[in-house]
Order: sequence, then C-alpha cells, then structure tokens
Amino acid sequence: MSHDDKPVVLILSGHDPSGGAGLLADAEAVRGCGGWAVTVPTALTVQSTQDVESVSPCTGEFVRRAARHLCDDFTIAAIKVGLIPNIDVLNAVIDIAKACPGVPLIVDPVMSSGGGTDLSTPHLVGTLRERLLPLVDILTPNRGELARIAARPGEGEVAQVVEIMSLGCAAVLLTGTDPLEGEAASSLVVHTLHTPDLNRQWQWPRLSAQYHGSGCTLAAALAARLAAGEGLAGACTQAQRYTWDTLDHGFMLGRGQRLPDRLWRAPDFDATLE
Amino acid sequence: MSHDDKPVVLILSGHDPSGGAGLLADAEAVRGCGGWAVTVPTALTVQSTQDVESVSPCTGEFVRRAARHLCDDFTIAAIKVGLIPNIDVLNAVIDIAKACPGVPLIVDPVMSSGGGTDLSTPHLVGTLRERLLPLVDILTPNRGELARIAARPGEGEVAQVVEIMSLGCAAVLLTGTDPLEGEAASSLVVHTLHTPDLNRQWQWPRLSAQYHGSGCTLAAALAARLAAGEGLAGACTQAQRYTWDTLDHGFMLGRGQRLPDRLWRAPDFDATLE
Repeated sequence: MSHDDKPVVLILSGHDPSGGAGLLADAEAVRGCGGWAVTVPTALTVQSTQDVESVSPCTGEFVRRAARHLCDDFTIAAIKVGLIPNIDVLNAVIDIAKACPGVPLIVDPVMSSGGGTDLSTPHLVGTLRERLLPLVDILTPNRGELARIAARPGEGEVAQVVEIMSLGCAAVLLTGTDPLEGEAASSLVVHTLHTPDLNRQWQWPRLSAQYHGSGCTLAAALAARLAAGEGLAGACTQAQRYTWDTLDHGFMLGRGQRLPDRLWRAPDFDATLE
Repeated sequence: MSHDDKPVVLILSGHDPSGGAGLLADAEAVRGCGGWAVTVPTALTVQSTQDVESVSPCTGEFVRRAARHLCDDFTIAAIKVGLIPNIDVLNAVIDIAKACPGVPLIVDPVMSSGGGTDLSTPHLVGTLRERLLPLVDILTPNRGELARIAARPGEGEVAQVVEIMSLGCAAVLLTGTDPLEGEAASSLVVHTLHTPDLNRQWQWPRLSAQYHGSGCTLAAALAARLAAGEGLAGACTQAQRYTWDTLDHGFMLGRGQRLPDRLWRAPDFDATLE
C-alpha cells in the first residue's frame, strides 16, 4: 500500500475529553491499525476516567453536514458508529450510511454513557432495529446491549443474535468482556462472531484492571481492518489481538480506569493475515 | 520515565473533522511527542482539507466544566490553546489558565478559521491582550497573527514582539511559514524565538506542498515537550524538528491540502536534548 493510500474510516461517535474512549480513541485505533480517521462528533460529554457528568447531543443536521463535507473530500473505506445519543442523530447516521452504499458499516451500539446514564429509549431502539440494522455489516454489542436490542429478552444469546440478523444485520461480534449482572468474571474473555455461514469463538486471558475505551478500540480497529480490505474473520482476529495488546500495555494517568495504549507499537498486520 | 508517567497536556481547541488540524491533530502530536492529551473542544467545525464551511462555538460554560472535570482527574503538565471562537470561550480559557498556576500555557493564536473567516473582533483581541497574554508562557503566532495582536501594525516584527511581551507574555515563537501578502515564499522557513533574555532563529528547508495542520502540530508538540520538562529553547528545537518530519512524511488523502503524518515514527527525544 502506497503512502497516499491509507484507507479512510469515517467515525461517528461521541467526544470523550479523557481520550480513553469515544472519537479520539476511535481515531487513534484507526491510526494504530494502518488507516486514517475522519471524525464527526455525535455528542460532546463532560467526563473523566472516573465518571460521566453529562452528555450533550450534537444536532442531526450538524452530523449530516459534516459527514457530507468529508465524503466530498475523502474516499471513505469504512464507517464506524459509536454513541448515538438520540433519534435526531440516529436519523442522520441512517442517512449517511444510505449515502455510502457498499461501504462497510460497523456499529458499536453504545446504549449507556458509561456513567450509568441510559441513552436508549424504546423509540430509539425500535428505529435502530428497523432502519439501521438492515444497513449494518457488523454489530459489536456486549451481552447487555445485545439483550436490549433483541426483542427476545428472555431467550438465550444465540436466539437474540439470530433475531437481530433476521432484521438484516449481516454479522454480530458478541463481546464477552463484561459479566452480566450477578455473574462472576471468568478468567477467559470469550468473543463470538456470528454470520449466516459461520460461528467462531476467540478466547483471551482476562486482564485484571478496568479500562476506559476497550469497546471503542475494538470496533474502530475492526473498521480499520475491514477498510484495509481484510475478510471479516481475519479482521475480527486482528482487531481483538490489537485491542488486547493495547490494554495489556495500558497505563494509569487518571484516578479511575486505565487507558489503552493504542500506539504502543505499529502492528505488523501482514504477519497475522488469515 | 515510567509507563504511567506520561505528561498530560490539556488541549483547548476547535474540532476539525478531517483530522488534519485542530483537536485531533493536537492530540496526535502530543502522543507523537511522548505525552497524553486530554481535550476540550472550543468549537465544532464543518471542514475538509479543502475549506471550512462553518464554525460553531461551544459555550464557555461547557469548556469550563469539561476542563474542571479533567483537572480533578489528571495532573495537567501543560495547557495548549488553539482556536478561540468568541469572547465567551476566551473568558473560559482565561479562567482555566488562572486555575492552573505554574502550568506552562502555550497559545497558538488562531485568528481565522483557515477558510478565510475572520474569528477576531476588536473586543476579542483586546481581551486576549489584556487578560490572556499576561498568563502565556509562549505564544506561537505567524506574522499575520502577530500583526493583528500587536497594537503597532505599522512597525516591524521585533517592535510588535516587544510590545506583546510588555503585556506579560513570557515568550514568542514567531513562525515564518506563511509569506505575508504580496511576498514571495523563500526557500527557507525561518522561525524565531523571542524571550527577554534570548533571541534564537531556526531555518528549515521549505517543503513545496500545502499542509493542513502544521501550526497546530508545532504548538502541540511544543506543549508536549514543555510538559515533559524540557527547557524552552530545547522544546522549540524538538517541536520544530518533529513538525518538519511529520510534514515531510505527510500524505494526500483528501483533495486539498496534504496531511502531516504525526505518527510516522516515535522520535527519540533523548537524542536531541539540548
């Protein structure tokens, strides 16, 4: 790949001032995985490594205009969506995705702000299910998010994934980092890829610390590797390995969660092609 | 320096979706120079590598709250200020700087949006002169910005610098990249550091391309090196060398200006200590 050929990933996510998560984390992960990020904030937040004080949504009109301006200038090779703070921004995200047919759409369905604030409403989840999921190439929920998006809360994870894929979502990478309520954390973190043709599991040694931005890092790294032309399973492997390494090399600068080191080295992805 | 000891730079600047300039450029330069960036947007923009369509200021109240939340969590080792879109944000920046006595304050006085929009008003410039400059450890204007901040437009650059320092600004790094109106670009770019005790010049071979974000990169790199404990002249040298390298390794992804590669390698600053 020539120097002027870095694949460009369009990031639509919230801004986190701490740099651990959100738009800056996404951009850093994209750079760490060989791409270039162009970014449109979906919300501004007041937050630190300890808590989220407030979330201020941007307007859908701003998100739409900023993305259109970028699409006129850059060749977008993938779109990664993080925090969707309300229905106005969700409608903008849907419009942007529809204006970029054939461009891989990676959605990390952030349903709460990390500070316990619930950002989902029945109307938002319903619109996400009916209008966004049919456009999604891969959704990266944790188990709590999966249960809230699927319409079968009482059934098992596989039934929930199948229901989401029946709405048109092409694949689901279900992350297993977060234990469900009342569940003890096991020593292994298991992530599972579901597609109509393939199920695949990865196991990673659980790291003992808490990290700010691991989910953003994983989804953005996945977007960067899909933008680079990787196949889905290979991109999932690379993104998980990259993310695990950034956490393992993470550091403590604030008083709360540790921060991933997304630039600890430039990974040699050619060596891990599958 | 241990892994958990990266110096943290507080960035107060505008968000540029292209990633070439603004808040993301600042954060990337800080990372490229060995630090960690925490960031508060002062404005959102719609822009690309070709032009700036609009600038939407954040509220001073948001800037103040977000910075306070970061200061409660991180030990801030330097503050870098970029775009100040209006008097409300300027007052917030002044409050934040006053709340961090002894922390190096680096101000890149961005007076227009890059798209020709003038962001300065007489009231803004007057307040900047009277209330912000006395707090500034180093100001990094280009010659056009210097002339607009100084109250002696008809006089030479040295007189303008001296007047600015008489207001309490401790040092000025005057950048010479941009030719003044009607002036031909020379083959060398000359940057000049002025302090009460020292004047020093650096000359760099002029690169032929146009770059999006070179000024942000320089000021943020300077902030990161001051945050790491470098002396003023040494930090200026390192920041200029780093910036020149990022431009020399820059790439073309949009249709307008080239983008600096701020992560092209991790510079070994120890080798260039002065």
